[in-house]
Amino acid sequence: MTIDHTANGVYAIAVTPFDPQGNVDRASVDRMTDFYLGCEVTGLTILGVMGEAPKLDGEEALDLTRQVIKRAGKLPVIVGVSAPGFAAMRALARGAMDLGAAAVMIAPPSSLRTDDQIIGYYRQAVAAIGADIPFVIQDYPLVFQVVITPKVIREIVRELPSCVMLKHEDWPGLEKISTLRAFQTEGSMRPISILCGNGGLFLDFEMERGADGAMTGYAFPDMLVDVVRVSKNGDRQAAHDLFDAHLPLLRYEQQAGIGLAVRKFVLQRRGDIAFDHQRAPGASLSGAAKEEISFLLQRLARLDARAAGL
Amino acid sequence: MTIDHTANGVYAIAVTPFDPQGNVDRASVDRMTDFYLGCEVTGLTILGVMGEAPKLDGEEALDLTRQVIKRAGKLPVIVGVSAPGFAAMRALARGAMDLGAAAVMIAPPSSLRTDDQIIGYYRQAVAAIGADIPFVIQDYPLVFQVVITPKVIREIVRELPSCVMLKHEDWPGLEKISTLRAFQTEGSMRPISILCGNGGLFLDFEMERGADGAMTGYAFPDMLVDVVRVSKNGDRQAAHDLFDAHLPLLRYEQQAGIGLAVRKFVLQRRGDIAFDHQRAPGASLSGAAKEEISFLLQRLARLDARAAGL
Amino acid sequence: MTIDHTANGVYAIAVTPFDPQGNVDRASVDRMTDFYLGCEVTGLTILGVMGEAPKLDGEEALDLTRQVIKRAGKLPVIVGVSAPGFAAMRALARGAMDLGAAAVMIAPPSSLRTDDQIIGYYRQAVAAIGADIPFVIQDYPLVFQVVITPKVIREIVRELPSCVMLKHEDWPGLEKISTLRAFQTEGSMRPISILCGNGGLFLDFEMERGADGAMTGYAFPDMLVDVVRVSKNGDRQAAHDLFDAHLPLLRYEQQAGIGLAVRKFVLQRRGDIAFDHQRAPGASLSGAAKEEISFLLQRLARLDARAAGL
Amino acid sequence: MTIDHTANGVYAIAVTPFDPQGNVDRASVDRMTDFYLGCEVTGLTILGVMGEAPKLDGEEALDLTRQVIKRAGKLPVIVGVSAPGFAAMRALARGAMDLGAAAVMIAPPSSLRTDDQIIGYYRQAVAAIGADIPFVIQDYPLVFQVVITPKVIREIVRELPSCVMLKHEDWPGLEKISTLRAFQTEGSMRPISILCGNGGLFLDFEMERGADGAMTGYAFPDMLVDVVRVSKNGDRQAAHDLFDAHLPLLRYEQQAGIGLAVRKFVLQRRGDIAFDHQRAPGASLSGAAKEEISFLLQRLARLDARAAGL
Repeated sequence: MTIDHTANGVYAIAVTPFDPQGNVDRASVDRMTDFYLGCEVTGLTILGVMGEAPKLDGEEALDLTRQVIKRAGKLPVIVGVSAPGFAAMRALARGAMDLGAAAVMIAPPSSLRTDDQIIGYYRQAVAAIGADIPFVIQDYPLVFQVVITPKVIREIVRELPSCVMLKHEDWPGLEKISTLRAFQTEGSMRPISILCGNGGLFLDFEMERGADGAMTGYAFPDMLVDVVRVSKNGDRQAAHDLFDAHLPLLRYEQQAGIGLAVRKFVLQRRGDIAFDHQRAPGASLSGAAKEEISFLLQRLARLDARAAGL
Repeated sequence: MTIDHTANGVYAIAVTPFDPQGNVDRASVDRMTDFYLGCEVTGLTILGVMGEAPKLDGEEALDLTRQVIKRAGKLPVIVGVSAPGFAAMRALARGAMDLGAAAVMIAPPSSLRTDDQIIGYYRQAVAAIGADIPFVIQDYPLVFQVVITPKVIREIVRELPSCVMLKHEDWPGLEKISTLRAFQTEGSMRPISILCGNGGLFLDFEMERGADGAMTGYAFPDMLVDVVRVSKNGDRQAAHDLFDAHLPLLRYEQQAGIGLAVRKFVLQRRGDIAFDHQRAPGASLSGAAKEEISFLLQRLARLDARAAGL
Repeated sequence: MTIDHTANGVYAIAVTPFDPQGNVDRASVDRMTDFYLGCEVTGLTILGVMGEAPKLDGEEALDLTRQVIKRAGKLPVIVGVSAPGFAAMRALARGAMDLGAAAVMIAPPSSLRTDDQIIGYYRQAVAAIGADIPFVIQDYPLVFQVVITPKVIREIVRELPSCVMLKHEDWPGLEKISTLRAFQTEGSMRPISILCGNGGLFLDFEMERGADGAMTGYAFPDMLVDVVRVSKNGDRQAAHDLFDAHLPLLRYEQQAGIGLAVRKFVLQRRGDIAFDHQRAPGASLSGAAKEEISFLLQRLARLDARAAGL
Repeated sequence: MTIDHTANGVYAIAVTPFDPQGNVDRASVDRMTDFYLGCEVTGLTILGVMGEAPKLDGEEALDLTRQVIKRAGKLPVIVGVSAPGFAAMRALARGAMDLGAAAVMIAPPSSLRTDDQIIGYYRQAVAAIGADIPFVIQDYPLVFQVVITPKVIREIVRELPSCVMLKHEDWPGLEKISTLRAFQTEGSMRPISILCGNGGLFLDFEMERGADGAMTGYAFPDMLVDVVRVSKNGDRQAAHDLFDAHLPLLRYEQQAGIGLAVRKFVLQRRGDIAFDHQRAPGASLSGAAKEEISFLLQRLARLDARAAGL
């Protein structure tokens, strides 16, 4: 079942679990999927930046897709299909949809510079994968070095009906959400779903600007679910309280280069994956870093206990 | 009076106040200097990235330096002298020292790539300004696109005795501090002062890794002073409590492109400068952004009141 | 006397002569200006990338401008005014025009990425310097990392009547010339002058695509003058013969990092400047490189002699 | 049969022929291989930047490798194995060697910045593919944005005995060749083969600086073979004469973005491949560009005829 522009809530960006030998840890794939289900996320996204997608070959990518979709049941699964060439992108996209994926996600290659180049790239990508597959624009300039303006997004949305969602991780991006929603209000752009990434660092305000939810890999998706729900209900202070309690750890995850290592370490600590190993080339955490994370988890637990009135 | 490797505490990065016509607002320069003195900072840094230094001409830069140093009295003032050419760098550096500056700060031009290019640049810079002027390495890869390894820093420190301080804003940089301190412990590098920038986003842990303090422009330098003092006293939980209370706002300041606008807006709100204007080209805040900052300031005040037992 | 969109021919990009102590070599400034006059160039451009402009302070820049304009007599002089801030840009632009400059040239700062950012930058620049000063867009992505599409140039030309010329050094850029000329033909853009830079590497074909001439610093501007004249007269084979004879040397000048060193060395060899010194930071030539240049000059002389029937 | 540090001559970078539907044109693969054999090249390199390698999936890459190696007979074939992850790199490298490849070529990913990162990357790559496979460092900063100093190359060569060759396409790079050869002379680096790429733009002087030959895709490998042979024989003027005759076309191929389109068009014109099609995303040539290339080919033919005394 595919998604459309009404998609909302929290799509957890799943890591790809590896064992210490660098093989996909298939047992952890199921365990992790169950964990996300237990967090009551709305959907899953696999094979994103945090999923170490470029380190998988085509067959491994489809195997992972198959396993996650099967285990996730009714939960929609978005599959990252960014690839250096359109042949590989098409193969993965069509393969994933055949396996039951809900949509695919496409990031712009870092060589793109001008507005026309960006629009042209998405036009070519859709021609390659087929106009029947709903797709998500991944807008992450800090990592991809490609700056996509609201007007360019509008143009892509106008021209390509299969564009259903923006994974919004521009930085800063609050005004971008406001601008896109204003486009919709004035009728110059049809509605799209906007889910926010960027590690969740601005999720509190992104929701208030009109985002539909989050799509990020923060190791406590349960908190993201709470923040999105409470924020939608209009309880501003409560939403910020929930969010701020996690901000010290969430900020710690934002360290370029070791963010995934932090995330896998926390997920392992939470029992969701068996190993925090990354396939090479990957980063690892020093003893000091692990102690700092443990310290942050303790402070978080203390805050939670206090909030629960314990 | 110049500084040396024992410098520590909080050096506030001062903004440059402009009036709405784009002229340096000299009245606010004094007011702002007094504000920083009242925050009990250890020193001041002017003409950094946040000081809109490239928008000043040489005469304006020296005028600002003169006024701040005079008003700051015994407080050491570090002057940013990064310039596209060594002639301008030398003129500003020698002029600033003649006016009583405590040291100068030099950022690497973004064209540098290799280790040898970076070392060579600092060698040339010191040849240009003179070996008698203490200088600070500004290590800010997110902005300057130049990655300086600990070994390169060690080589600069070894070769150039006038290097007294690292303005550390690598991202992530916790391991870098640990590595540099290990160099000192093992005797392969003489001691230098390490003050942390990067908006203060990791100051809590940077202090624990061995930093001597902060050099950043967060609009509540009083909090930075507290965190540095409490952290040095070894009260870890209290330091984090102080820091975490400010993290939502501090994070909000971290938005690329509008960070300075946020900072000037808060400083204006605190009464430290008359206008939040930037000299062109500059960013401005939307109404929504101003409301969000006000909201964060209210939450901060509420937390402070609670902490004070009110 | 200012220039307008009918400007054509060869505008030589002048180096800035320095003596071995790094001071502007004022005697060579006159000698060099006379040399360019002798080459029968149409105009001069000073304080460009090749003019080591960022290494001069504001006063030096105006002194050089004054001296060159005075010596050049009726020859129009374009002055590069690119600067990190609009205050400095305005000061230099208005100062240069007061001294009799024919126009100013503005390069985009490398931080610009999107179409709107580029257009906005030129809008702000014109607001800063004044709409009465004719200006040249410098379009040099290889150096400035800013990609300006034909549509963006058209928008700048439409919106800003003081835009009179494009210094075209996109790479590759032949199609860009054709596209811009097609805009003019179809009436969607008013005519502008297009002079080609990029060291002259594609001048032969650029003329055939519709360029009005060259603006570059190749050390034999006399050849550029010949190629532009012969090409305009429609003698295609002769234009290519003239051009191809110089291509080995012209190509040698295209070496990133040492191009200016090669150019100054040849100009010194030709007697046009007293020293090939660059103000720090600058590159220098190895003995092997100097020998290679001498070898290329000998081959060139032999070819010239042969062409002259000697 | 594998190659070692004594490899020399001309290794032609082969394009990957596609038919208009975007499938690998297997008939042209054989025809093209025969063409290169007829040019008397020393070896072939496939799946490089010019081979559109990232657009092939793993199976296609191995199929192409198999076909070329079989057809090339005794000619050594180097296979580009650069990949976003080490798993794919290993699979392709070991697969290629099993099929009879002579060596593999590895380019640095553009995220690498510091000396240690570059050395570390090659260390990890060798660990991944196995120390028994001879490999070539591809040093192409203009495309990969990674600057590798001679000292870093020396360190890689020292530490990794399976490094046998440098594909040298730094720009400018003449001094780099001299420096590396000086390392060998002074005994601080064991000998490696240096073959020059960069489209051949500086091949004339690169040979004189100590290169062992060329590895590039210029559409007249026969000329490259001649230049390398004549240059090695010490006939400097003759080597430059041969080279200069091709420089106008060779320069035309150097246009970023359309270089491959030019090359495929010329190869098609020479009858070596059936179609000049690129797999998407690819560039195409305008009518004007095709006319310009034809014009250059005519001038080249005229020069050749004149040189042959016709």
